[in-house]
Amino acid sequence: MQKIVRVNTRTAEVEYDSPTEEQLKYGGRHFIAKILLNEVPPTCEALGRHNKLIISLGLFADTNLSTAGQLSFGGKSPLTGGIKESNTGGFAGKRLAKLGIKAIILEDIPDEELTRVLHVTGDEVKLIDAPYLKGMLVDETFNELRQRFGQKIGLICIGPAGEMKMHSAGIASVDDNGTQVRYAARGGLGALMGSKGIKAIVVDDSKPTKPQYYDEELLKETIKGVTEALLADPKSSNRRKYGTLDILELANQVGLLPTRNFSIGQFEKASEMTGPQFAALVEERGGCGKSGTPCVPGCTIMCSNVMPDKNGKKIVASIQYESLVLLGPNCDIGNLDDIGELNHLCNQVGVDTIECGAAIAVAMDSGVIKFGDTEAAKDIVRQIGKGTYLGRIIGNGAAFTGQAFGNRRVPAAKGQAMPAYDPRALKGNGVTYVTSPMGADHTAGNAFETLKTNNPLGIENQVNNSYNLQVRAALLDSMGVCLFIRPAFVKNHALLSALYKARYGWDLTFGEIRNMGADVLETERKFNELAGVSEKYKRIPEFMTEEPLPPNNTVFDIPQEELERIWSVEVRTDAF
Amino acid sequence: MQKIVRVNTRTAEVEYDSPTEEQLKYGGRHFIAKILLNEVPPTCEALGRHNKLIISLGLFADTNLSTAGQLSFGGKSPLTGGIKESNTGGFAGKRLAKLGIKAIILEDIPDEELTRVLHVTGDEVKLIDAPYLKGMLVDETFNELRQRFGQKIGLICIGPAGEMKMHSAGIASVDDNGTQVRYAARGGLGALMGSKGIKAIVVDDSKPTKPQYYDEELLKETIKGVTEALLADPKSSNRRKYGTLDILELANQVGLLPTRNFSIGQFEKASEMTGPQFAALVEERGGCGKSGTPCVPGCTIMCSNVMPDKNGKKIVASIQYESLVLLGPNCDIGNLDDIGELNHLCNQVGVDTIECGAAIAVAMDSGVIKFGDTEAAKDIVRQIGKGTYLGRIIGNGAAFTGQAFGNRRVPAAKGQAMPAYDPRALKGNGVTYVTSPMGADHTAGNAFETLKTNNPLGIENQVNNSYNLQVRAALLDSMGVCLFIRPAFVKNHALLSALYKARYGWDLTFGEIRNMGADVLETERKFNELAGVSEKYKRIPEFMTEEPLPPNNTVFDIPQEELERIWSVEVRTDAF
Repeated sequence: MQKIVRVNTRTAEVEYDSPTEEQLKYGGRHFIAKILLNEVPPTCEALGRHNKLIISLGLFADTNLSTAGQLSFGGKSPLTGGIKESNTGGFAGKRLAKLGIKAIILEDIPDEELTRVLHVTGDEVKLIDAPYLKGMLVDETFNELRQRFGQKIGLICIGPAGEMKMHSAGIASVDDNGTQVRYAARGGLGALMGSKGIKAIVVDDSKPTKPQYYDEELLKETIKGVTEALLADPKSSNRRKYGTLDILELANQVGLLPTRNFSIGQFEKASEMTGPQFAALVEERGGCGKSGTPCVPGCTIMCSNVMPDKNGKKIVASIQYESLVLLGPNCDIGNLDDIGELNHLCNQVGVDTIECGAAIAVAMDSGVIKFGDTEAAKDIVRQIGKGTYLGRIIGNGAAFTGQAFGNRRVPAAKGQAMPAYDPRALKGNGVTYVTSPMGADHTAGNAFETLKTNNPLGIENQVNNSYNLQVRAALLDSMGVCLFIRPAFVKNHALLSALYKARYGWDLTFGEIRNMGADVLETERKFNELAGVSEKYKRIPEFMTEEPLPPNNTVFDIPQEELERIWSVEVRTDAF
Repeated sequence: MQKIVRVNTRTAEVEYDSPTEEQLKYGGRHFIAKILLNEVPPTCEALGRHNKLIISLGLFADTNLSTAGQLSFGGKSPLTGGIKESNTGGFAGKRLAKLGIKAIILEDIPDEELTRVLHVTGDEVKLIDAPYLKGMLVDETFNELRQRFGQKIGLICIGPAGEMKMHSAGIASVDDNGTQVRYAARGGLGALMGSKGIKAIVVDDSKPTKPQYYDEELLKETIKGVTEALLADPKSSNRRKYGTLDILELANQVGLLPTRNFSIGQFEKASEMTGPQFAALVEERGGCGKSGTPCVPGCTIMCSNVMPDKNGKKIVASIQYESLVLLGPNCDIGNLDDIGELNHLCNQVGVDTIECGAAIAVAMDSGVIKFGDTEAAKDIVRQIGKGTYLGRIIGNGAAFTGQAFGNRRVPAAKGQAMPAYDPRALKGNGVTYVTSPMGADHTAGNAFETLKTNNPLGIENQVNNSYNLQVRAALLDSMGVCLFIRPAFVKNHALLSALYKARYGWDLTFGEIRNMGADVLETERKFNELAGVSEKYKRIPEFMTEEPLPPNNTVFDIPQEELERIWSVEVRTDAF
C-alpha cells in the first residue's frame, strides 16, 4: 500500500497515512491541486504557517514507463500568489516511488530559523538538524550530503536563495553521480521549502517496497509499446541529438526568440547556438561532454546534455532551451560558454534560470548594468547567493526588479517571468501565460508545437488551442511523465487507456482520461479565484499590447473577453 | 463657472471643460472615485498610460470655511493596486480654487522620460520642460521654482523618490514662505506623478475668478458658526497647543503605540515625546519654533508646528503624530531631534513618513541595520534620494522591504504600511485597515476617537463603528475639509446642511449628506473589486493574528466573515 507522509516542520511530528480511495486517483500535479484546495486557505501567506509544500509522485512513478519519475512540488506560490506545481527530473523521484511513497506533505513552519534535512528511508521519515549546510551552494550541499548519508541516495536541496526566501528560488534535484542538476524551478517553491527550514531531502531506498500493479503483464507490454513508439518518433530522436535546443533555430526564424528584454524576436548570434551547433561543440570538445543523456532513470528520450568547456570539463548539465535564451539572447549575451556558466551559477545559488535571466535583462533595460555585459551578469548571480541588496532585488524575480528600478518593461504574467516564446509572435502562449493557473509557464501548454497548424500571429483559435494544450499538460503532469512522451500516444490512444488499466485496474476511455486533465485545471482555477489571482485581474503586461515586436511587428491583441472565455471551452476528446 | 482641466502628458494637449451637472456634485475624494471608476480600467498598470492622476478640490475649497483648502490627489495606487485618494494642506489648493478650477486630470504618459512643470494660471494651463529640476530634493525644488516663477505662488512637487517611481513616494505641498512642507503622502501617488513626467505644479492665482455662491449671506453666517464651534471645542484647543501629538500619551498608555516594528504597544521613552513635552521644547528653544500654525490659509484649528533645533533653527515643519511614531518608537528611536531630522529627510527625498518608517523598521527587524541606530536610519533615507539598491528597496515601502529580506513581519494592509495604531490594541482600526478601499489608512476611519465608547480590545461593534467612521471620513474628504472640523457639526447637524445650501443651493438632510460619504465608499469599493483588491483577498498580516501584542497581549481576531459584513452595514444618520 502506498503512503502519504505528513511532516509538521514546527513540532517535527511525522504522520503516515494510507491514501483514501479518492486520493489514490490523483497523482503529481492533480494531487497537489486537490490537497491545496482542500487544506490550504487560498489567501494565506505563501511563506507562512498555513501553506504546505507538497511533494507528490505521478500516477506512474512506480512503473518503468519511459520518462516517469518526474517529481512534482507544489504549494501556494510566493511569486504568483496562486497555486503552483513545478516538476523535475533527477533520481530522487524514482527512489521515493520505490519506498512506496505517494506524497510527502510539509506543514507549518518552525518557530525559529532552522537548517534541516528531511531524511526519508524505508523505515521512517524524520527531520535532522543540519546547521553545517546553512548558506551552502547546491553542488557543495549535494557533495556534503553524499559524504554523510552515502553515495546511492536520492538528493533534493535548495540553494542560499531559497534559504533567504527569494521568490525566484527553485528546488534542485540531481542524478546519482552529481552531474545533472535539475530544477523544480518555477514559482519560488525553493523559498517555500526554505520557509519550512528544510535545506535538503535525502532519500535512502535501500529498503524498497514492491509496488503492486493490477496487471503486471499488460503493464510490461504497454510500456514496451510506448518505448517503441518513442524510438520510432523523429521528434524524439532530434531531442536525443540536440536536446531542447532543437527548437532554437525555428524560434529565431519565426521571430519569437526573446532578445534584449523582449524588445525583438530575433537574435543576431542565434545561428551560433542552435541544436546542431551545440551538439557539434560537445563532440568537438570531448571530455565529459555528452548529448543524449537521461534526466530520470530509464528515460528513452534522453534530451539532456553535459556541456563541456574547452578542456572537456563540465560547465553545466543540462543546458536547456529556456535557460539558454533567457540568460543568453534576452541579456544580449551570445557566447555559449558564458551562458553555460551563468546557468551553472543559477543552479548553484538556487534560482530559476527563466526568472533570473528575465530579471537580469530587466535590470539591463533599466541601466543597472549594460546589455551584453557578461561579467556583470555573472557577478549579479553570485550576489544573489551572497544576499547583497542588488542580489536580493534580482533574486526576487523580474517583476520585483522592475518595481525596484521603476521599469514597466517586465515580461511576466501573474508575477512570473515568461519563458522563451514572446507572446506577440506566438499568441497561443500569451493565452497560456495569462490564463494558466501557473502563470507564465510554457510547460503548462506550449503552442510552439502547433506553430504550423495554428497561425501564431492570428487571434483565431488561440484560446481553444491553448486550453487543450493546457489540459494535456495537466494530465501528463499528473501521470508523472515528461511532456515529451506525447508522441507515443498521438496515434495510439489505446496505449494510454491500457496504462491506467494495467497499473490501477481502471477502465477509462480516452475522453475520461483527458477529463482528468481538465479537472486539474478546474481545481487549480478554483484555488486561484479564491486567492484573487486570475486572468480577470492579472493581465498581459501593457508594453506587449503597445510595442510591436520586430520582425513581425505584432502586438498581443487577443481581447480580454476572448481570454476569459477559456473556462467554457470544451475538452477535445479526439486528439492528444 | 468652474473648470475641469485635462492635460495629456504625452501630447501636451490641454482641454478645458465645464463640469457636468452630475460632476458638480462631487468634490475631492468623491470626484476622484467617480472619474476613476468611469474612465480608468481597474486592472491597468498604475504607472502606465491608462492611469490618471486626478487633482481635485473639495466642494467648499472656494469658501472661507475653516480647514477647507485640503487638496485631493488620486488615481490607481502603485502601492496598493487599488483606488487611492490622498489629500494635503499647503497653499496651492486655495490658489487653484481661486482660479475657479475644480479639478485637473493628468492623462497618459510621455513617450520618453521628462522633467516638467505644470504651470497653472488664470489664462491657461501648460506643460513646461524643466530639466534643471531633475533629481532635486523638495526644498531645493521649491526654492528654485520661487526664483523662476515668483514668490506668491502655490507650489506642489515630488522628490527624487517620485521621479524614480518608488512606491512610497508622496506629493509635497508647501506654504507661501516655504516653512510648512505638507504631503499627500500615501499610496505612492508621487510615483504616479513621476510616471507622467511632472516634477512640479506651479499655481499663479494673480488673475483670480470670483466664486459664485448660492447664498453669500447664509454662507458667511454658517462659516462663522463653524468657527465659533471650533473655538469653543476643547479638542481643537488641545490641537492648537500640542498638534497631533496630543494623542501620543493616551496611545502609549492604552498600549497601541507601534514600537520596534509593531512588536509591542508601549515605548519606554514615550513620556519624552508627548504633546505637552513637545510644546515645552518648542517654547524653550524659541527661534523659529512655533506651535499652533495653520497648514491651509484661514484654518482656525492650527495644529501644525515648526520644530526648532537647539539654536532655534527649523528642523522640520510640521511634525505629526504618525510620522513621529513610525520614525521614532517603531524604529526604537527616542530622541526628538533625531526623529525630526528623519522626518525632514523623508520630506526632502519625497516619501511618505509612515511607509518609510515602517520599511526601515522592517529592515531593522530583518537585521539590515540595528533597532535604534539613528545614523544608519538617516543614511537609508538619504540613500532613497540617491537611488542606491538599498534605497530603492526601502523606497518601495514596507511590504517590498519585507519581501527583499524574507521577513513576514510587515505591518501592512493592501500593501500599504499601517499608521501609528496597532490593530491588535485598537481593533476598529484593524477593520478600517483591511476593509477601507484606501488600505491601511487612519484618515479613512480612525477608531481612536471612539476609544472610550467602543472597547478597543473587543470584537463587538468594530465593523459597524469602522464603517460609520469611514463614511464620515469619505464625506469630509469630499468637502475638502480636515477631519478635525468634525466637532463643529457633532451637536449641530444643521450647520452641515446650511453649508451645502449656502454654497450650492442644495436642500439636503443630514441623512442625505451622510449618504454622499457612503456613495464615495461604494464607488471606490467597485473599482477595487474590479481591480482584484478587496478584503476578500487581502487580509491582515498573519503575524498580527498569531503574535499577542504586549502589554494587552491581544491578537487581531475579528473573524473574516465579520469583516466582509461591512458593506451591508447601514449608514448612521443620527450622529456625526
